[in-house]
Amino acid sequence: MTTTFIRNAWYVAARSEEVGEQPLGRTICNEKIVLFRSGAGVAAVEDFCPHRGAPLSLGFVRDGNLVCGYHGLEIDCAGKPQSMPMQRVQSFPCVRPYAVVEKYGFIWFWAGEKETADESQLPYLEWAESEEWAYGGGLYHIQADYRLMIDNLMDLTHETYVHASSIGQKEIDEAPLKTTVNGEIVTLERNMENIYAPPFWQACMRSKGLDATQPVDRWQRCHFHLPSNVHIEVGVAEAGHGGYHAPEERKVSSIVVDFITPETETSHWYFWGMARRFNVQDEETTRQIRDGQGKIFSEDLEMLEKQQQNLLDYPERRLLMLNIDSGGVQARKLIDKKIQAEQADGG
Amino acid sequence: MTTTFIRNAWYVAARSEEVGEQPLGRTICNEKIVLFRSGAGVAAVEDFCPHRGAPLSLGFVRDGNLVCGYHGLEIDCAGKPQSMPMQRVQSFPCVRPYAVVEKYGFIWFWAGEKETADESQLPYLEWAESEEWAYGGGLYHIQADYRLMIDNLMDLTHETYVHASSIGQKEIDEAPLKTTVNGEIVTLERNMENIYAPPFWQACMRSKGLDATQPVDRWQRCHFHLPSNVHIEVGVAEAGHGGYHAPEERKVSSIVVDFITPETETSHWYFWGMARRFNVQDEETTRQIRDGQGKIFSEDLEMLEKQQQNLLDYPERRLLMLNIDSGGVQARKLIDKKIQAEQADGG
Amino acid sequence: MTTTFIRNAWYVAARSEEVGEQPLGRTICNEKIVLFRSGAGVAAVEDFCPHRGAPLSLGFVRDGNLVCGYHGLEIDCAGKPQSMPMQRVQSFPCVRPYAVVEKYGFIWFWAGEKETADESQLPYLEWAESEEWAYGGGLYHIQADYRLMIDNLMDLTHETYVHASSIGQKEIDEAPLKTTVNGEIVTLERNMENIYAPPFWQACMRSKGLDATQPVDRWQRCHFHLPSNVHIEVGVAEAGHGGYHAPEERKVSSIVVDFITPETETSHWYFWGMARRFNVQDEETTRQIRDGQGKIFSEDLEMLEKQQQNLLDYPERRLLMLNIDSGGVQARKLIDKKIQAEQADGG
Repeated sequence: MTTTFIRNAWYVAARSEEVGEQPLGRTICNEKIVLFRSGAGVAAVEDFCPHRGAPLSLGFVRDGNLVCGYHGLEIDCAGKPQSMPMQRVQSFPCVRPYAVVEKYGFIWFWAGEKETADESQLPYLEWAESEEWAYGGGLYHIQADYRLMIDNLMDLTHETYVHASSIGQKEIDEAPLKTTVNGEIVTLERNMENIYAPPFWQACMRSKGLDATQPVDRWQRCHFHLPSNVHIEVGVAEAGHGGYHAPEERKVSSIVVDFITPETETSHWYFWGMARRFNVQDEETTRQIRDGQGKIFSEDLEMLEKQQQNLLDYPERRLLMLNIDSGGVQARKLIDKKIQAEQADGG
Repeated sequence: MTTTFIRNAWYVAARSEEVGEQPLGRTICNEKIVLFRSGAGVAAVEDFCPHRGAPLSLGFVRDGNLVCGYHGLEIDCAGKPQSMPMQRVQSFPCVRPYAVVEKYGFIWFWAGEKETADESQLPYLEWAESEEWAYGGGLYHIQADYRLMIDNLMDLTHETYVHASSIGQKEIDEAPLKTTVNGEIVTLERNMENIYAPPFWQACMRSKGLDATQPVDRWQRCHFHLPSNVHIEVGVAEAGHGGYHAPEERKVSSIVVDFITPETETSHWYFWGMARRFNVQDEETTRQIRDGQGKIFSEDLEMLEKQQQNLLDYPERRLLMLNIDSGGVQARKLIDKKIQAEQADGG
Repeated sequence: MTTTFIRNAWYVAARSEEVGEQPLGRTICNEKIVLFRSGAGVAAVEDFCPHRGAPLSLGFVRDGNLVCGYHGLEIDCAGKPQSMPMQRVQSFPCVRPYAVVEKYGFIWFWAGEKETADESQLPYLEWAESEEWAYGGGLYHIQADYRLMIDNLMDLTHETYVHASSIGQKEIDEAPLKTTVNGEIVTLERNMENIYAPPFWQACMRSKGLDATQPVDRWQRCHFHLPSNVHIEVGVAEAGHGGYHAPEERKVSSIVVDFITPETETSHWYFWGMARRFNVQDEETTRQIRDGQGKIFSEDLEMLEKQQQNLLDYPERRLLMLNIDSGGVQARKLIDKKIQAEQADGG
């Protein structure tokens, strides 16, 4: 099968809080792995015990090593067997280790060979480190090719239809669109001037003390980053104060943070969230936004899963590529180019 | 795969009340379609948006056109794109349209090319248009070849076993059977004289004011019509008054109305119902009969689905064809003949 | 596909109480059968009516014969058609009969040709016939190759990990192990001296009036019998009185009785239970032990099913065979040898 994933890249494998005392089994880019907290930090190995093939994710962590829950084979964070009751393990095969790094509240997984992992390629996420930002988010498992989610997020005209009652409004469809490719980043920009804010943004304005009944300038700037992450700067400002560039007290703005991690060719993990610069201390606002965003993003699930099913049922169909699709089209071009380069390198 | 469906024929796709303001997605004869109410009446097109492959059945109807719920492509009842926000749609491909007609409280679907649809081939259903009749019915989805349901309905000896507590009685097995083929109709006739009515018919007699404790003459006349419909005239009359030909006041009679619509080779939609000539104004009688019939027909589901599974597990097995199976055998012959004619025509 | 089952052998098909007035459909060694109570005892035939392929397990028993629930074909315990309403059945094909025997509270199924069934090969189960023993048990359906359950039961070091809170203890891992093969029986023996009893055994000691706080000698003797049964003698005695050989009043002992019946290559029926020699009249003890054992064995289900999934995902992987695996390894050798002999015989 032709691969549809970039291998030599960092993917979000889990939210930090998902891996506690218990190991966590998860499939990423078709690799079945188990994540666990070793003494040296988080670690990942193949979820397959060399003794009898049991899933190591049903085991437990002891002194920073992972112990198989079936017969007690204990491996260290590099996958090397350390002990087993009454056994000499020196000659036991190692469990394949993977490179993982914990940063920004996430566990990042390098889908290629461990030796090639390059931490300098981790993205820089200002909002995750600064006190001026607050973040909330969640995770969905979706039965669809991860690239359908990239398409979805790089074409926000769907908001008018899928999210009509929260963030959609017809002005999105009508606003001119600008797509640019800058190296390995695709950016899509849309500005809507002197409109009324949709319900989600009205609520945000009210929570900051702004008058939600007045016209606003609204913006969306979608940024696709390799291998498969989309960050969307969104916000509204009181009309006529510069929109995206308006002073902080005139606007509410945030970043929709989407990490889209392939599980298989036709399923993915969707880590969604929002980082904001207003009311950053208020946990109730965080909760409300997360609940609202979780509901909005759940509206995409059925659409994407049925779209995937349609594409599987009609594999020969050519789809349209319109200007509104240019974000997804450009993102896929970057992905394809990277995959080809990896394969030329002997992948 | 050898096809098992006739294409150029009308199938019941839905009960009229299933298609309201929302479009309805349904698979019929392996065609994934969406039904919706256009200004010009009910319409059907392929459930696949040419833009990105989204299911149109997740969209909505606006001014009689169908709007894709993903990015707003709007098509008319012929599948022709009419508009899309900020797009010129003249060159967009059409969505494949299908012929549908609403009549008798059902939506009828022509499984062949739309151009070949022939409304004169719609069946004539007297009971659906006359004030002298009342009708109630329902719909089941069954994981079995639609022809197994035809077999089932064209051999009512199964009533003695599957429906022992309602309409079955051993006299059915023992009554002589007459099968006739008249053009494209197969008829099976069975008369049982001077017997006691089974529980279902006793209830019907009581509801008309007849003495349910006296012997009756009972009849069943199964009529198979192409492509896959079975109508069964059933009833009981006070014994000795002519049975099927008894005067109206001496009998209770009805038509079991079965529209059997293939979904795939191994599943179908079963539209069941009963049209009756007694107590036609009494909605409580309609409700009771529908509840009773729904329960009776649900008893067939497990049998048919497990029979289908057995046939899939043992594809090489030859089955018996007994005289009691003649109705189904003759019906299948008509179906096969029609399919062969279609294929000879270049299908 | 290479077969993984011995054919000419007795497998437990059902607990006696599972087959009452209603027939019971079940798949064993890939054979779909229906079990029913004939006048001559329990009988089994293929679960496929030769008339239309209906499952006979949806039928009923009349005068010791099995009647198809669809159209009334009646067969005797040998699968020979006896009657059908209005039909002459002499020329009807027979339904394939299978050899079954009811004994010890179980129904035993011979997976080979009926003619080759040899009752002398039934195991002798003393505990099932003697008044000095009590028995309780249950049945689990497990989505895993039956041989993975044999491995499981022939290597009780897994108790320390999977059953840590009931019967596991680290001394199991540390006790020396002795494996012997005696003809068609593999025996694994482990003795743990002067240890503290784990919770399950403490409860058993208390129920017999022994002091559960004192040290004990504990033993496990696993016996594998062809085709796939494992009986494990287990118990604890007050320390220093001979362990396994201690006098009856100083010990509590029982036999873990496991009948492991293949359903398909990747699923099996697991009949588990315990026969004991203490408090044999006390039904409350039987209930408590069954509940406890049912809970313990349910802990194995997830492990085995995920292990099976791992083995299917990585079919090329070679597993380790350690000394603790010797019981399973030897058992598989006996199975393979028997299968080869059957195939050489023209299987």
